[in-house]
Amino acid sequence: MALFSYSNFKPIEDLLELMGEIKDLRSASSLLDWDQETYMPRGATGNHSEINATIDKQIHSILTGDKADKIHDQFLNTRYEVTIFERRLFGLFMEERRRALKVPVSLVAELARQKTTAVESWRIARLKNDFSLFRNDLNKIIALKINEAECLGAKENTYDALLDIYEPGMTESELTAIFNSLKEKIIPMLGKVRTSGLRVDTSFLFELYPREGQIKFIRLLADMLSFDFKRGRIDSSSHPFTTALSANDVRLTYRTNENDIRMSVYCALHELGHGLYEQGIAPDLYRTFAGEAVSYGIHESQAMFWEKIIGKSPEFAQWCFIQLKSYFPGRLKGISPVEFYFALNKVEPTLIRTEADELTYMMHILLRFEMEDDLINKRYTADSIPSVWNEKMEKYLGIVPANDSEGCLQDIHWALGAFGYFPSYALGALYSAMLATEIKKQMPDWNRNITEGYFTPIIQWLKENIHTYGKTENPNQISLRLFNKKITTDDFLKYIKAKLNAIYSVS
Amino acid sequence: MALFSYSNFKPIEDLLELMGEIKDLRSASSLLDWDQETYMPRGATGNHSEINATIDKQIHSILTGDKADKIHDQFLNTRYEVTIFERRLFGLFMEERRRALKVPVSLVAELARQKTTAVESWRIARLKNDFSLFRNDLNKIIALKINEAECLGAKENTYDALLDIYEPGMTESELTAIFNSLKEKIIPMLGKVRTSGLRVDTSFLFELYPREGQIKFIRLLADMLSFDFKRGRIDSSSHPFTTALSANDVRLTYRTNENDIRMSVYCALHELGHGLYEQGIAPDLYRTFAGEAVSYGIHESQAMFWEKIIGKSPEFAQWCFIQLKSYFPGRLKGISPVEFYFALNKVEPTLIRTEADELTYMMHILLRFEMEDDLINKRYTADSIPSVWNEKMEKYLGIVPANDSEGCLQDIHWALGAFGYFPSYALGALYSAMLATEIKKQMPDWNRNITEGYFTPIIQWLKENIHTYGKTENPNQISLRLFNKKITTDDFLKYIKAKLNAIYSVS
Repeated sequence: MALFSYSNFKPIEDLLELMGEIKDLRSASSLLDWDQETYMPRGATGNHSEINATIDKQIHSILTGDKADKIHDQFLNTRYEVTIFERRLFGLFMEERRRALKVPVSLVAELARQKTTAVESWRIARLKNDFSLFRNDLNKIIALKINEAECLGAKENTYDALLDIYEPGMTESELTAIFNSLKEKIIPMLGKVRTSGLRVDTSFLFELYPREGQIKFIRLLADMLSFDFKRGRIDSSSHPFTTALSANDVRLTYRTNENDIRMSVYCALHELGHGLYEQGIAPDLYRTFAGEAVSYGIHESQAMFWEKIIGKSPEFAQWCFIQLKSYFPGRLKGISPVEFYFALNKVEPTLIRTEADELTYMMHILLRFEMEDDLINKRYTADSIPSVWNEKMEKYLGIVPANDSEGCLQDIHWALGAFGYFPSYALGALYSAMLATEIKKQMPDWNRNITEGYFTPIIQWLKENIHTYGKTENPNQISLRLFNKKITTDDFLKYIKAKLNAIYSVS
Repeated sequence: MALFSYSNFKPIEDLLELMGEIKDLRSASSLLDWDQETYMPRGATGNHSEINATIDKQIHSILTGDKADKIHDQFLNTRYEVTIFERRLFGLFMEERRRALKVPVSLVAELARQKTTAVESWRIARLKNDFSLFRNDLNKIIALKINEAECLGAKENTYDALLDIYEPGMTESELTAIFNSLKEKIIPMLGKVRTSGLRVDTSFLFELYPREGQIKFIRLLADMLSFDFKRGRIDSSSHPFTTALSANDVRLTYRTNENDIRMSVYCALHELGHGLYEQGIAPDLYRTFAGEAVSYGIHESQAMFWEKIIGKSPEFAQWCFIQLKSYFPGRLKGISPVEFYFALNKVEPTLIRTEADELTYMMHILLRFEMEDDLINKRYTADSIPSVWNEKMEKYLGIVPANDSEGCLQDIHWALGAFGYFPSYALGALYSAMLATEIKKQMPDWNRNITEGYFTPIIQWLKENIHTYGKTENPNQISLRLFNKKITTDDFLKYIKAKLNAIYSVS
């Protein structure tokens, strides 16, 4: 029996056609975004921005047009028994239509345009280490996002309307509870690590690892993780990301640092996690609103699973250690696999989110979550960002950036108007720990397989249990199906505690 | 005074917005096409095809929608005095709208989809040297193009409707007259060359020219011709082409052959000619229907001008000879610049259009023109293409391809449904000869400049007299403005006769 079955209800064809057209336009938009970060001539920034704005307007007009109205009425007024899958497709369509009807097209176009402008000014501000060059564009983006959130409407908190875009159903109050539970445990743990007296040596990670070797090693990782190059590609860019035009066209980027082997390896593992998800979505879902990830939190869980749960495990460290020694002759000399594993997991408050260890990473997200909440609720404007950022870094991690490039200018997200996205990273980390618990339970050979670089059983498990379903479920449903419970901090806290105990002997 | 001025007529704003949106969508489509030939994972072919079909449908629906109707009525019914430029924009819009109203959207989408399919089967057929693998898809494309031509309507010949897309106003009967005039002179000339007894040595062009050197040399050519890399890029692909998303985003591709130095050099000159045209269009015309080339014939004239008129001149040969000797040490040893010039201009019937000399090139186009005329007028189907092709090759050039890959499968155009395009190459060659006459008249230093590799004055002339105007004129108007006459074969025939006389001493 087909997993995703159709009844004979005629109007489904109109729905499929409409969704197909919107998905096509979004794919074109994804290609423009990918192009902008990889091959676009710099002088074309403004043009790409205009094109994206036009595409967004077209999508908006399809979603609010006569055909969409007709589909809406036909589904609502029928007594025909449609399948569960059809009902889901209709539900996803309804939700997109509801949003489009609430947000005026002029705002859609303005946001699309302002994004590209803000990304460029962010780029320059970061390069010149001068937040003031980004401030005005960021204030504009924030004003537009507040406007969008108000149009969308939310019961309790304006910010909820934006969170809902990335994590359907998630709210500011639920996230506050999650972060409180994390904060309460992480801050004391961090204190214990600090006073443990153990000095983990990481110097051998920062020797010269030539770029060509890193590129070859990334290719090995991609092959080991069965990334399908017939249906995807990998390029380098200054800000690593994954874009999928469809499951047949999944594009990752990575960056290398010749003096930090961690960057390319963990960047690649992270994006490969995203990439495997996209490539694993069932072909039946192509050109439908279900042909994408459940949510950004679940998407990040796949990236985090490979980057952190697997990538920072002693088993992977052992495999990776042997590989790196052969890819970079002369490196890691006189180092043991255990020292290598310790180095990869060194816990230490640092300034850059993407380079943070698993424990302090959560504090980086907490900081951003609180600031987004404040900004969208107009408690302060972009003008206050640098000072608030530094205060919070001091409060949560005990360190203060020497400049804004290492502080509030480090991430591209706000320039893109992606307010509500950051929490996905924390949710991803929590889900990935829940996944680890479950997979370990179901797969007794897990440790040995990873030590031997045999990743196929896990990949297969993730594909069969998550990827293939696309967006046919919401985050809660998938959590209940897989774990028999809603999202929780328990698994993550247990996992991180065990790791710290093993490395720092703290309990 | 601004070259392109506006009145205070309000509805122009609606027209500009509508044209802007369509241009944006076309740019997205151009990016998809470029991507398909450069970086797209092969498994995504079908998806790109769907996306392009959706974009074409969107454009069609904008052109035939209420807003377009309103603009149409407002312009037609006004007594307001609009500027010449505004009238031209309205005229271009009217023409696009007229076409869209005549061709049903289902046909538009079907054509977009069938194109991508046909290109893939053409690729395979060519690789496997088996026309039968392409035949069915080609028959489908031809049927769709006939359908399109019939929808568009033409006074005398169905084929005229397709010619008009590429060369506004051009007809089958005018082209027949042009080709008759060419044929009448070229065939005897070819006979004289054959019996001249001169054997031109070209062997030194086919020695090993390493790829890296060729890539560097192409970069030099691009710099010499002031191609702006901030507003464009150059990649390699198996079928060289130029795509412009806008004047700020012009993308060329080239191909190299390590055993034929002509391929990359002439390919690059050709595409650079196209590229300079696109980059030279006035910024004021951005996102309007006037922000593109006059016609494909005029576009080809720019490519042909650099590839042939300049690229095959004794002056350029002399400059190029010195450069190549320094880029490829050991090559061209014991060869004189004159021998090099002779080799570049060797006249000899050959099988591949893109490698043909200037004289026989016209016969390659004549053959394709006649076949397109026959196919669109249903005188035979795709099934007859291989035999008809070979007969005509025998008749016009006295040679017969040993297989279809060297024959009727050599060009991508028919797979793309571009029936009506080929004549543009002949028109381009004629216009480029007319341009040469005019530029030589106006620029006494022409010879010395080229010998010294100083191309700026000519580039400037082309920019100021052609590029900057975009599509504000039609082909006849630009011909009258620049040459005070309509297109003619005279200049080309005079030019080629002089060249043959210099090399082969034939008159």
